[in-house]
Amino acid sequence: MILETIEKENDIKNVSPEDWNLLAEEIREFLINKISVTGGHLGSNLGAVELTMALHLSLNLPQDKIVWDVGHQSYTHKLLTGRRSGFEHLRKYGGMSGFPKRKESECDCFDTGHSSTSISAGLGLVKARDLRDEEHTIVSVIGDGSLTGGMAYEALNNASRLKKNFIIILNDNNMSISENVGGVSKYLNNIRTADKYLDMKEGIYNSLMESKLGEPIVTSIRRAKSSVKQLVIPGMFFEDMGITYLGPVDGHNINAMMKVFREAKRCKSAVLIHVITQKGKGFAPAEKHPARFHGAEPFDVETGLPLTPKTKSSYTDVFSTVMCKLGDRYDDIVAITAAMPDGTGLKRFRNLYPERFFDVGIAEEHAVTFAAGLAAGGLRPVVAIYSSFLQRAYDQILHDVCIQNLSVVFAIDRAGLVGSDGETHQGIFDLSYLSSIPNMHIMAPKNKWELSDMLKFAVAFQGPIALRYPRGEAYDGLREYREPICFGKAEWIYHEENIVLVAVGSMIKTALTVRENLIQKGFTCSIINARFVKPIDTEILKDAVKDHTLIVTMEENVASGGFGEKVRDFLDENVPEVKLITIHIPDEYVEHGNVEILRQEVGIDAETIGRKILASI
Amino acid sequence: MILETIEKENDIKNVSPEDWNLLAEEIREFLINKISVTGGHLGSNLGAVELTMALHLSLNLPQDKIVWDVGHQSYTHKLLTGRRSGFEHLRKYGGMSGFPKRKESECDCFDTGHSSTSISAGLGLVKARDLRDEEHTIVSVIGDGSLTGGMAYEALNNASRLKKNFIIILNDNNMSISENVGGVSKYLNNIRTADKYLDMKEGIYNSLMESKLGEPIVTSIRRAKSSVKQLVIPGMFFEDMGITYLGPVDGHNINAMMKVFREAKRCKSAVLIHVITQKGKGFAPAEKHPARFHGAEPFDVETGLPLTPKTKSSYTDVFSTVMCKLGDRYDDIVAITAAMPDGTGLKRFRNLYPERFFDVGIAEEHAVTFAAGLAAGGLRPVVAIYSSFLQRAYDQILHDVCIQNLSVVFAIDRAGLVGSDGETHQGIFDLSYLSSIPNMHIMAPKNKWELSDMLKFAVAFQGPIALRYPRGEAYDGLREYREPICFGKAEWIYHEENIVLVAVGSMIKTALTVRENLIQKGFTCSIINARFVKPIDTEILKDAVKDHTLIVTMEENVASGGFGEKVRDFLDENVPEVKLITIHIPDEYVEHGNVEILRQEVGIDAETIGRKILASI
Repeated sequence: MILETIEKENDIKNVSPEDWNLLAEEIREFLINKISVTGGHLGSNLGAVELTMALHLSLNLPQDKIVWDVGHQSYTHKLLTGRRSGFEHLRKYGGMSGFPKRKESECDCFDTGHSSTSISAGLGLVKARDLRDEEHTIVSVIGDGSLTGGMAYEALNNASRLKKNFIIILNDNNMSISENVGGVSKYLNNIRTADKYLDMKEGIYNSLMESKLGEPIVTSIRRAKSSVKQLVIPGMFFEDMGITYLGPVDGHNINAMMKVFREAKRCKSAVLIHVITQKGKGFAPAEKHPARFHGAEPFDVETGLPLTPKTKSSYTDVFSTVMCKLGDRYDDIVAITAAMPDGTGLKRFRNLYPERFFDVGIAEEHAVTFAAGLAAGGLRPVVAIYSSFLQRAYDQILHDVCIQNLSVVFAIDRAGLVGSDGETHQGIFDLSYLSSIPNMHIMAPKNKWELSDMLKFAVAFQGPIALRYPRGEAYDGLREYREPICFGKAEWIYHEENIVLVAVGSMIKTALTVRENLIQKGFTCSIINARFVKPIDTEILKDAVKDHTLIVTMEENVASGGFGEKVRDFLDENVPEVKLITIHIPDEYVEHGNVEILRQEVGIDAETIGRKILASI
Repeated sequence: MILETIEKENDIKNVSPEDWNLLAEEIREFLINKISVTGGHLGSNLGAVELTMALHLSLNLPQDKIVWDVGHQSYTHKLLTGRRSGFEHLRKYGGMSGFPKRKESECDCFDTGHSSTSISAGLGLVKARDLRDEEHTIVSVIGDGSLTGGMAYEALNNASRLKKNFIIILNDNNMSISENVGGVSKYLNNIRTADKYLDMKEGIYNSLMESKLGEPIVTSIRRAKSSVKQLVIPGMFFEDMGITYLGPVDGHNINAMMKVFREAKRCKSAVLIHVITQKGKGFAPAEKHPARFHGAEPFDVETGLPLTPKTKSSYTDVFSTVMCKLGDRYDDIVAITAAMPDGTGLKRFRNLYPERFFDVGIAEEHAVTFAAGLAAGGLRPVVAIYSSFLQRAYDQILHDVCIQNLSVVFAIDRAGLVGSDGETHQGIFDLSYLSSIPNMHIMAPKNKWELSDMLKFAVAFQGPIALRYPRGEAYDGLREYREPICFGKAEWIYHEENIVLVAVGSMIKTALTVRENLIQKGFTCSIINARFVKPIDTEILKDAVKDHTLIVTMEENVASGGFGEKVRDFLDENVPEVKLITIHIPDEYVEHGNVEILRQEVGIDAETIGRKILASI
C-alpha cells in the first residue's frame, strides 16, 4: 500500500508520478471502506481525490494554506496530513471531525461547515500574508454549488482588486448537494460542454486580423477590455469581475492540474482555476445517486444500500407527506428550498407541483426574501431550511418578512442537536434568533402527528410562523394526545402535582423518562407539552403554579433568548415564589458525535435532568 | 406649478411631454426645499427624479409594482402617488416614512430599508403574479451599490430561469453610499465609458462575415452562446447569467428611458435595464459631496451647510480618532467597513493607513468572514458595521468567527434607537443576536471616554468581542469615572442603597435622571454602569443585593436574549428574594421619529422608568 507510506504532509511528494493513479485508487478504496462503516460525506470526497493530491504535490504545507469550502471534501486532505487512523472514529464523539478543524492539524488553516465562505476567508489570509510580508500560497477550493451563495460573489467582487496572488479553485461537478440551479450553473455547463471554445477564440482572432476592418477593431477592443483573449474564451463572467480565469481542466488528471497550478502561482492577481470533477467518482452507486451519497449513513460496499434500513419515518418524511397533501388542498401553497430538495423532503412536492416548487440554490438569504415577495403577492410560501443554515437569513426574516408581518411559514428541519456533523450544523440557536424578532411565532411538535397538525395550522396562520423539528426518526409515542393546535396554547400530557416538566418539542420524550424515574423515586410529576415557544402560554403556567412548586423547562437550544428565559421572565414577574429550573444547551459549541452521547455531555439527558431536580427539592 | 396638479398615481400621465423637464425641475426644487428643513436622503432622490417619472409614465399603478431597493430613492415616487403633503412631516414621529411602506400607500408594494433585497422580492411578486394568472408589470429598481450585496446576485442567478417578464432597473450612479468598490463596479464603469461598444459589435460581426472563416465561426458561436450579439456588447456579465441586458440609457432622459421600458416589457424573461444617473443631480453641493448628502441633516439651501453645526463630537468621531491612534500604535490593526467609510468614521483611518483599510462594499457577510480570515492570518481586524446591518452577518459571526474563537473586534455603531430612519434601521437586536453566540463578548460604553477605553481593551483582547454604541452625540458626562476596563466587570457610579439602576451604555444618561427624580421623592438610589453585557458581572450583582431590595436593568434592546434576561437568570437562581425590573424595548418594531419621542413611546424614558419603579415599591 502506497497510502501507508504517507504519514504526514508532503510525504506524497515521495510517491513517484507513475504511482499517483494507484495511490488515488487506494485512497478511494480506503474512503469507501471507512465511510461505509462510519458514515460520512462520500460523493464530494471521492470527487476530490486527484484534486487534493495535485494540491498537495504542488504546495508546501502547512506554510501554504488550503481553505476548503464547506469542508465536506477534505477527507483526502486529512489522509495526506497524517490523519489516516482518525478515520476509525470519523465523526464519532471525541473522534476526528468530518470537516477541517484548526485544532486537529496545522494543515487545516480555517474551519468550515457552511457554504460559500472559503473565498472570503482565503482573501483575509491573503491580505494578512501580504501585510506581514510573508510568502506562501493560499488556495480556496469552492464547489460550483457553493458558488450559488451570495457571499461567494461578494468575495469574488473584492478579490478582483488584488494585485497579489490568490488561487481560487472552482471544483465543478455540476452539483450542489442535489442538482445545481440558476444562471451561473447553466453558464458553467456551457463552458463544460463547449470543447471548441479555445479553437473558436483562435478562429475569431485570425479572421478579424484577415479582414481589412480587423486590426482597428482588435486594437480598440484591446483598449476597452484589456485583451482580445477575453472575447470568447470561457470564464468571461469571472474575467468581467476582474478575476483571471484558467481552465477548464480535468479534475481527475493530476498532471494537467499541476501544470495549471504552476501557471496560476505566477499570476499577480486573483486567479480562478476551473476544475471539472465527478462527484462520487469511482464508486458506481455514488456516481449514480449523488444526493443519497452526499452525507451517507453506513452502507454495504457491494450494493451501496444502507446497513440499517430505515424502519420508522423521520420528521422530514412526515413534513414531506403533509406538504404534498396541503399542495393538493390549497393551490396557493408554494415551497422553497435552498439546495435541499432531498434533505428537506420537498422532492415529492416538487414532483407533484413543479410550478409551485422553488429550489433557489445555496442561497438562504434570497430564499427568505423571495418568500416574502411570494407572500406579498398573495401566495402561501413554506420555506424549508435547516436550523443552522437559516442563521444566514436572520436579517431577511427580521427585515423582509416580519416588519411587513407577511404570512411565511418556516419549516426548520435539523433543529436541536444533529450529531455527527458537529459544531457548524447543530441547530441550537433558532429559538433564540427567531424569538428576538417581533411578529415572529414559533412552534415545536412533540411527535409526528403534531408536526402534521402544526404544519396545517401554520399554512392557515396570518403572519410569520416557524415550526422547528429535529433530525432523524420522528417520535411516534403519545399518539392519543392530539388536541387541535390552538394559537399560543400548550397542552397537559400528565397533570398531577409537585413537579411539572414543560418540554419543548423533541424534549417531550426525555420528559417522559424523567417523569418515570421521578415516580420510581416516589414523586408525582406532571408534563406540559409547550407547543408554542413564542408566544409562551402564560395561562397554563398560571394554572401550573397552583398545584406545583417546581417548574422545569426543557429545550434543545441555548439559554440566551430561549424558551426557559421567557418562562422565567413571566414567572419571576408574576409568581416569584415558584421555583424554576431551566434545562438548555450550555453557552458553548457542541462538537460532533452521537446525539445521545452529546445530550449527556451537555446535560440535557434524562439522568442529568433527574439529578438536577432531585438536588433542588 | 405642474407638481400641484399631481394628486394621485397616474396623474403624471396628464402632463404633456414638453412639460416633463419642467416637472422634473419642480420636483427637484420641492425635494431640496423640503429636505433642507426636515433632513432626509437627498442625493439618491435627486438622482432618481426622471427615472421615477419615466416609470410612472410607463406603468399603471397600483396594478403594476415597483420594488425600490433600500428605498431611500422613493421620494419622487411618493410625490407622484399623492403624498406631497407628507413631506411636511417626513421622517417625523407619526409622519411619513423616508422608505416605501405598504401601510402608507397601495402603490408601495414591498417595504425596504436594507440593501440588495429588491430583486428577490420582485422575483417573488413575479412568481405570485404568474401562478395567479395575473397580468401586470413588476419592476425592481436597484442601485449599483446594492449590486455589491451577495443576495442581489443570488436573486439574479434565480431570475435567469424566468420565462416570463421581470424588469430589473440598474440605477447606476457609480456610487454606493460612498464610492463604489470591487470588480463589478469596475466592470460597470467600463461599460459606462465605452460609447463605442455597439459600433464594435457591428464591426466584429461584419468582419467575421466577410472573412472566409467567418460564417462557420459565427454559427458555432451562435450555437454555444445563443447569439453573436452577446459577444462584445456591454452586459455580458448579466447575459452570462441568463439575464437579458438593455442599455446603457441616460437616466435623465425620460423619452429614452420610456423607449427602453417599452422594449423591456416585451421580453419573456428577466431583463436588466442599465440606467446611468447622477447622484445629487441638480443641487451643486450634493453633486460635489455625495456622501454628505446621502442622509442629510437640515441644511441651508444656498450654501448646502448644515443648519445646526455640530458642536459636540459623536461616538463615531471618537471611534474614528481612537482608531487612528491605535493604527499608529499597532501595525497589525486592520479596519473593515461595508460601504460606510464616512458613516463609521473609518475614512480618517483609510487616509492614514490605506493598506490596512478595507471597504468591501455593501457586503456584510463577506466583511465578517474576511475579518475572520485576517484574524486567522495573524492580524487584528476591527469590523465597523451598523447594528441593524450586522444582522445580515449573524451566521458569519457565529460560524466563521466564534467557533474558531478568532480575535475579531466588532465596532457596532447606530446601536439602540436611531430615530428618523425607522423600523429597518433601529439597532435594537444586537445584544440579543450576539448574546446567543458562544465565545462572543459584548461591551457598551457609558460615555465618550469609555468608548475609547473599550476600543483599546477590545483590540488587545483574545477572542471575539463587540462594542456597541449609539448614533449621534457622544455623552460627555461622568468623565471622572474612568477606572480601567476589566474583563466582565461593571462599575459603581453611585453606591447607596434601596434601589439600584444597572444601565447598559447609552442608558446611563437616563439612569442619572431617574436617580435625580427618585432622590427628589426621598429615595436613595445607586447606579451601576454594566460595561459588559456578555458576560454579565455576577459579583457586582451579588454585592448589590446586600444593600438593595430593587434592581432595575436598563437597555436599549429588545427583552428576548438581552441584558435584563441574563441578570434575571442569575438573580432568580441565586438570590430569588430580590425584586427585579427590566427596562427594555418591547417586542415590536419601532417606527421613525425623534429618538426622545421614541423613548417615551416605547417606555424607556426617565419618566416612565421612574413611574414603574415607584409603582413597584
